[in-house]
Amino acid sequence: MTIIVQKFGGTSLTTAEKRNLAAIQVEKAVKSGKKVVAVVSAMGRHGDPYATDSLLSLIDSPDSMPDQHQALLLSCGETISAAVFSSVLHEIGLKASVITGREAGIHTDRVLNASITKVNPEPILKEFASSQVVVLTGFQGMSPFGEVSTLGRGGSDATACAIAAALDAEACQLFTDVEGIMSGDPSVIYNTSIVDRISYDEACHIAYQGAKVIHPKAIEWARSNKVPLWTGALDGESGTWITERHQNGGPIQSVTAVNHLVQVIVNSQDCDRVFTRVAQAEISIDLISIQPNEVKFTVDKADAFKLKEILLRAGFPYTFKENVSKIALIGERMAGKPGITSSIVSLLTKHDIKIWQTADSHMTFWILTDQHSSAAAQQLLHYFFIESGAEDLSNA
Amino acid sequence: MTIIVQKFGGTSLTTAEKRNLAAIQVEKAVKSGKKVVAVVSAMGRHGDPYATDSLLSLIDSPDSMPDQHQALLLSCGETISAAVFSSVLHEIGLKASVITGREAGIHTDRVLNASITKVNPEPILKEFASSQVVVLTGFQGMSPFGEVSTLGRGGSDATACAIAAALDAEACQLFTDVEGIMSGDPSVIYNTSIVDRISYDEACHIAYQGAKVIHPKAIEWARSNKVPLWTGALDGESGTWITERHQNGGPIQSVTAVNHLVQVIVNSQDCDRVFTRVAQAEISIDLISIQPNEVKFTVDKADAFKLKEILLRAGFPYTFKENVSKIALIGERMAGKPGITSSIVSLLTKHDIKIWQTADSHMTFWILTDQHSSAAAQQLLHYFFIESGAEDLSNA
Repeated sequence: MTIIVQKFGGTSLTTAEKRNLAAIQVEKAVKSGKKVVAVVSAMGRHGDPYATDSLLSLIDSPDSMPDQHQALLLSCGETISAAVFSSVLHEIGLKASVITGREAGIHTDRVLNASITKVNPEPILKEFASSQVVVLTGFQGMSPFGEVSTLGRGGSDATACAIAAALDAEACQLFTDVEGIMSGDPSVIYNTSIVDRISYDEACHIAYQGAKVIHPKAIEWARSNKVPLWTGALDGESGTWITERHQNGGPIQSVTAVNHLVQVIVNSQDCDRVFTRVAQAEISIDLISIQPNEVKFTVDKADAFKLKEILLRAGFPYTFKENVSKIALIGERMAGKPGITSSIVSLLTKHDIKIWQTADSHMTFWILTDQHSSAAAQQLLHYFFIESGAEDLSNA
Repeated sequence: MTIIVQKFGGTSLTTAEKRNLAAIQVEKAVKSGKKVVAVVSAMGRHGDPYATDSLLSLIDSPDSMPDQHQALLLSCGETISAAVFSSVLHEIGLKASVITGREAGIHTDRVLNASITKVNPEPILKEFASSQVVVLTGFQGMSPFGEVSTLGRGGSDATACAIAAALDAEACQLFTDVEGIMSGDPSVIYNTSIVDRISYDEACHIAYQGAKVIHPKAIEWARSNKVPLWTGALDGESGTWITERHQNGGPIQSVTAVNHLVQVIVNSQDCDRVFTRVAQAEISIDLISIQPNEVKFTVDKADAFKLKEILLRAGFPYTFKENVSKIALIGERMAGKPGITSSIVSLLTKHDIKIWQTADSHMTFWILTDQHSSAAAQQLLHYFFIESGAEDLSNA
């Protein structure tokens, strides 16, 4: 039995027309001899009556409500979606059954904002005895006490990838309203393209980098069982395959950026005490560089004021550089490749773009620059490394 | 432990304001030392997004959808309602838990349009160990195979009455948007009043008579365990108690009418063959009177054309009297009371209102009259028997 998992996001199920397109994808897979698990999110986005946010907005003060009642309420969004989608599948003649996350054996660690801890594939395999398609409610699971639970943001992706791993599926396809993973942000960079193939690691790095592709946790589930992951548009025409092997080609797959950051430089030999204070205030920091008399890091603009107070009270001399942007170049083949750093520095310097700080891991190179230079920097880097496929300046 | 069951209909839960009024009723009961089962319907009516009809309208062709998927979809209406209402109860400081019909041990005979077959009170009693209020989804149960099932129309009333009987509740209150059971149809009769107290039998007869009060099945459940039943407005100010004992006073509690009927007279000695043909065509008939050479009965206007064809084809001579109205006078104390028939006939004859047919059971007297005389007849009968409290014409 060859199983494929297809996940349809909320915006792919909003209208009857879109649900029909989704059903065609399922039909295609069934016609090619596969059993399909169709994971569905709640229909629509905020404002649509059955979207998760809309259900939550029916409550005046969610905080005074027991978690399990809230999970029960939220879970209705996907249950409605699953029943509606199964009816569309029946209309085109497919034998579909419906199963909720709780019934499907998706175990989670708690009731709200839960993470999947274990998946038991038996209930779905049992359904396949009599069904071509099992419609599974995404975003839901079972709490340690057997109650309905709901996952955190991106929960339906996690459901799809976890169930694909548990069923040893041939592939896990995530249908959304975007065309796949892009080589850069199309609102900033000309000539971006869809990345055809990328590695799990690269996709994780892009996700952690703030691009709203797939939740890193979901990718982890697919990787754990080497399930090929695909994300793309509802018509199936364009998308990105995420597998163990990255694409051949240049060292850089994608250029992304996070704006509205503040670079903080604290002049102190007692960096231990600095970080303790920051941690106590639950401020998340990034791009950390420690030197004998100085520590540097970035914080989100929203945390900057709070951080200033802490540093002042503790008596640390500091400098804040506001409106900086953290650009990331991501690509597995960058690792160990000489000349990348040199090329980046030459390219940006030649165009008078200031580099305030850099950092690198084996597959990501980060550059901190002024926010007003960020778009130009992304464009230059994208052109050089991706469009022209160059690897060092001598090829430019 | 004194338990009271309070059922809140869909229109009593549509807005935050109404949900607060409903919560006040629950609070009152808790403050008087009772444990409360709050049975909730889906919020709102057709057009409101979470109403049962609206959920069903998400499906293009419900018939091609497996029953259990449809039940699952429909059940979301009450689940949303229950979670939302429990949050309102929590906000005013009540300890409420939520339980679905399936979890609550409400067994039904099938998946859709089901009837309740058995109720196990244990799951709710268990909840009361830690909760003041158990919010129970109405209209839902568990199919013989353990699936979610949904009841027929008026299902939440049935849930409330059945659970009240199983828990041996002190009372079962059905809060709706009407003020109670009326002595007649206020759109036809002046000076109707709310009936304060009525017997289970009388309420059943009124319900069977087409007045949309409470489903007869629901009343049966309350009667089975002698649970006093109350129906009335959300503010609790006006309503009707339905118990074993009827009200003291006149013999008639309520005047109702069903319009758009056709009286059929078939001249045949072979009444067996007439009824067999009618039954085969699945036409429902009423007010049946059999005489040696003639059978009379009424049918709904919608079935008249079909019936004509059947009678013609079978070669039975017939007469159709269109636009007749069937008035019912309902009251338990009418049984065995001499002079009622005489009073009715005198009263209507004196006012030139034609009586085409009558029938009577121990607590209902039916009169078939022309539809254009129906309002006047109802008004006269209501005035004579209810407003002036008379029993025979000599008192008039």
